[in-house]
This record gives sequence, structure tokens and C-alpha cells, in this order.
Amino acid sequence: MLDVSSEPPAKRGKQTSEQKPTLTYWNGRGLCEQVRFMLAACNVDYDESVPGVDHISHLSDSHHFEQLKAQGNLAFDQVPLLCIDGLHLVQSGAIVRYLAKKHGLVGTSLAQEAMCDVVHQGIRDWHGACGIAFEFNFGHYAPSVEELAKFSQANSKYLPLLERIAVKSHSGFIMEGYGVAGLTYCDVALAEVLDQNLMREPALLENYPGLAKVHANLRDQVWLKNFLASDKRKTKKLEDVEPYKATVNRTLQR
Amino acid sequence: MLDVSSEPPAKRGKQTSEQKPTLTYWNGRGLCEQVRFMLAACNVDYDESVPGVDHISHLSDSHHFEQLKAQGNLAFDQVPLLCIDGLHLVQSGAIVRYLAKKHGLVGTSLAQEAMCDVVHQGIRDWHGACGIAFEFNFGHYAPSVEELAKFSQANSKYLPLLERIAVKSHSGFIMEGYGVAGLTYCDVALAEVLDQNLMREPALLENYPGLAKVHANLRDQVWLKNFLASDKRKTKKLEDVEPYKATVNRTLQR
Repeated sequence: MLDVSSEPPAKRGKQTSEQKPTLTYWNGRGLCEQVRFMLAACNVDYDESVPGVDHISHLSDSHHFEQLKAQGNLAFDQVPLLCIDGLHLVQSGAIVRYLAKKHGLVGTSLAQEAMCDVVHQGIRDWHGACGIAFEFNFGHYAPSVEELAKFSQANSKYLPLLERIAVKSHSGFIMEGYGVAGLTYCDVALAEVLDQNLMREPALLENYPGLAKVHANLRDQVWLKNFLASDKRKTKKLEDVEPYKATVNRTLQR
Repeated sequence: MLDVSSEPPAKRGKQTSEQKPTLTYWNGRGLCEQVRFMLAACNVDYDESVPGVDHISHLSDSHHFEQLKAQGNLAFDQVPLLCIDGLHLVQSGAIVRYLAKKHGLVGTSLAQEAMCDVVHQGIRDWHGACGIAFEFNFGHYAPSVEELAKFSQANSKYLPLLERIAVKSHSGFIMEGYGVAGLTYCDVALAEVLDQNLMREPALLENYPGLAKVHANLRDQVWLKNFLASDKRKTKKLEDVEPYKATVNRTLQR
């Protein structure tokens, strides 16, 4: 395991600044997409690759995953894995919080950081309630009646709660009502879920003017425009969903 | 909403240092218990109470919950709620991380904090897989065959992963293998889940010497001994479980 105790941040930063971060996942959204949005918001250049396996961008076979596990750098034998600053970070929430703190997207005090954490957790709950593995279990592809009901219930529960927060913003960033100025990782998380949900239901924000204003502001952010237009944003055609599922299942030997 | 932007931490600390924190939940464990463990580990004195409702320690009726919501201090209309340092914190994960950072239970650098976050998330995943609402859906009370199978599967999956981390510790604190010295909030979270799971299965750690060593060390911590012996630790007799469920459901009007 990596011993990070004796490395002062400055030294660690210097040692690793020449190494481009790598992100490891399948060629799909899932739990990784929030990390991709954050890397874009933080303007961090990275490669999608599988450490120890040359010439591939994404996990696609069981030996890739076995190789990763054998390296001992997956704390819970799970991906996404972000290799950055000499760290091997797993757990999407932990990865996102690390990037947010490193790049100043958490406000400017412990109190502001705590309120960002509260709102971010609420946004993640909403995402989970909608169906977090959007391409896998739900999507703009061919959702079942049950999936549509789940999606609708999640929005009915969380949009009014988020609207109550968003309506306090004049700047178009979600945390303004809690006194946190400018872009935070809560906006980044919100951008991910809204982008996904609006594909399914374009009129989603019709009755939520506060959220519509925040969304309009986020849509204008250069980092988001660039990311959504790039091949780093994962989208699939209907006919690509089943092969993608098969690839994930093969990789996990299930 | 509270504007925390213009309050320097020192001033905020001073303003509120005389106010004893309050924790709001039902008289049971659930998602609140991790917060109680953390408050104990941080040696923070607090009252369990319902702000705006006098003379009660715990939520027990729907008007208590309506009163709380009407105050506008439940960001997502959910409890636990911890009122501390002038903040109204909800979302158990966010509350625990705030306490951990404030009281220095996250290591001493951003890198150490990130690795604690990774391991903490894994412990919470394990807890969730066991059945997080232990008194409600599962317990040492009268679990069903399905609940026992879920419990067993969760332990089979996560104990080997956590053992791999724990075995690197000589000090008896779980994060030593990642170079983080002493007690962290990962140990506190581990203590909560182990205390729960060992009630159900006393031989749980028989094949996990690393975790057994960490557990033995944690069991010896004065804060944990005192907490477990106090009435702040929630346990129930079999006959009290159904009335507790009824109380929670009445409060939530479901």
C-alpha cells in the first residue's frame, strides 16, 4: 500500500506533477461519469486507460480486471479507479470530494464545505433514486414502465427539495443560498443528473424556475460545453446498450 | 438559510461555543447511530432533542416532524439533524465527515484524508449491505432466513477486503497500512458495524486476525467503552422493536 504519511503535499505534488492522471472504467457512464464531469470542471487532463494493460482505453475483458486487482490498488476490488498525485483512489464519492477539495470547489471554510457535502449527498440520493446506472438499468433507450415510474417518483421527491435551495440563487450556482459563492462540486453533480434526466424528459424543469435558472447558467459554462461535445462524454445508441452490458458482465465474470 | 460566507471560523466558533449541540432522531439506531459514535469519539457533549418542541428527547409524533420541516432547517426533509456551530447538518455521511475534519480524525494531509474517505465509504457499503436499519429490517432480534442470508453475503464479501487493509496495522487502527497514524473516523465506523454484527454472530472475526486485532484495540478505547455503557447507545429488546417501528411510521405519516 502507498504510505502517504511522510510525504508533504508540496513534495508529493512536485513528484507527480509530470504524470498524467489515469481513469479506469468501462466505456460507459455508471458510477464513473460523476468523476469525468469533475475532472472536466477542474480542467484536469487525463487518459482513460487500464494500468498494467497496454493499448486499451477501457475495461473489456476479465483478465483486465484480474490484472487490476492483482496490483493491489483497488481497495474494495471495485472501479472507477483514479490514479492521481501518486494515489490510487476508488469509491466515486471519495474521488469526487478529493478533486473538489484540491481544486477549491467546496467553498472557503469547514462550515461551507459541510453544507456543500449535505447538498451533494442529496443530489447523489436523487441520482440513485432515478437509477444511477442509467445506461444499464434505465435510460433514454428503452425504459420499462417500472423504470419510468421510478424515474418519475425520484423527480417528484427531489426536484421540489432542490428547487427550494436553487431559488435562493441569483448567480445561477446552487450553493449561493447557503452563502457559498461560485461553482462548487454540487453544481457539477447537478449538471450530470440534469443532463441525463433532461434527455429523458425535456420539460423536466418547467415548474422549477430556480433549477431552470441554475441549469441555464451551468449549460453556459465553457468546461461543460467542451466536455459534453467531446468523446469523453459517454452516450450510446440503443443498439449499443446490450453489447455494453455484455462487456461489463464478461469483465466481472458474472 | 444560514449564510456562512461572511463568518470567519474563529468568530463562528466563539459565537456558538456556549451552545450545546443537539441531535435529532427517533429513539433508535438507524442512520443516526454512526453520528452518535462519532460524537462519542470526538468527546462532544450533546443533547438528543427536537428543536422547537419542548421536553422531548426524540421524535415520536408527526407534528414533531412537521415542526422540524417548517423551520426550514432540514435540507432534504430528512433526519438525523445535528445542530452544531450554528449549522444545521443533515445527511449522515456529511455530518460524520464534518465532525471528523473538525476533530482531526482524517489524517494530516489531503492525500490521507482521501484514503480515509475511500476506506470509510467501503465500511458504509458493508454496513448497507448487511442491512443498515438494523433494528428495523434486521437484527439480533428475529431475523428472517432472507435477512440472515443477506447478512452472511455482506460479511463474506467485505470482511476479506477489510482484512486485507487491517492486516497492515500494527497499532490496531485500521488506516495504518495507508500511512495514517492513530484513530480515524474509519475506526469509529468500523466499531459501529462490528459491535452490531458481533451481537448477531460472536465468531464473526475468527478467520480475520487483522480485523480481530483492530477490534480488540477499539474495544479498549475509553470513549467507546463509556459510550456503549451509556444510555446514548440504543439497543432494544425484542418486544420493543414493533412499537419502535410503529413510532417511526407514525412520525413520517406512512
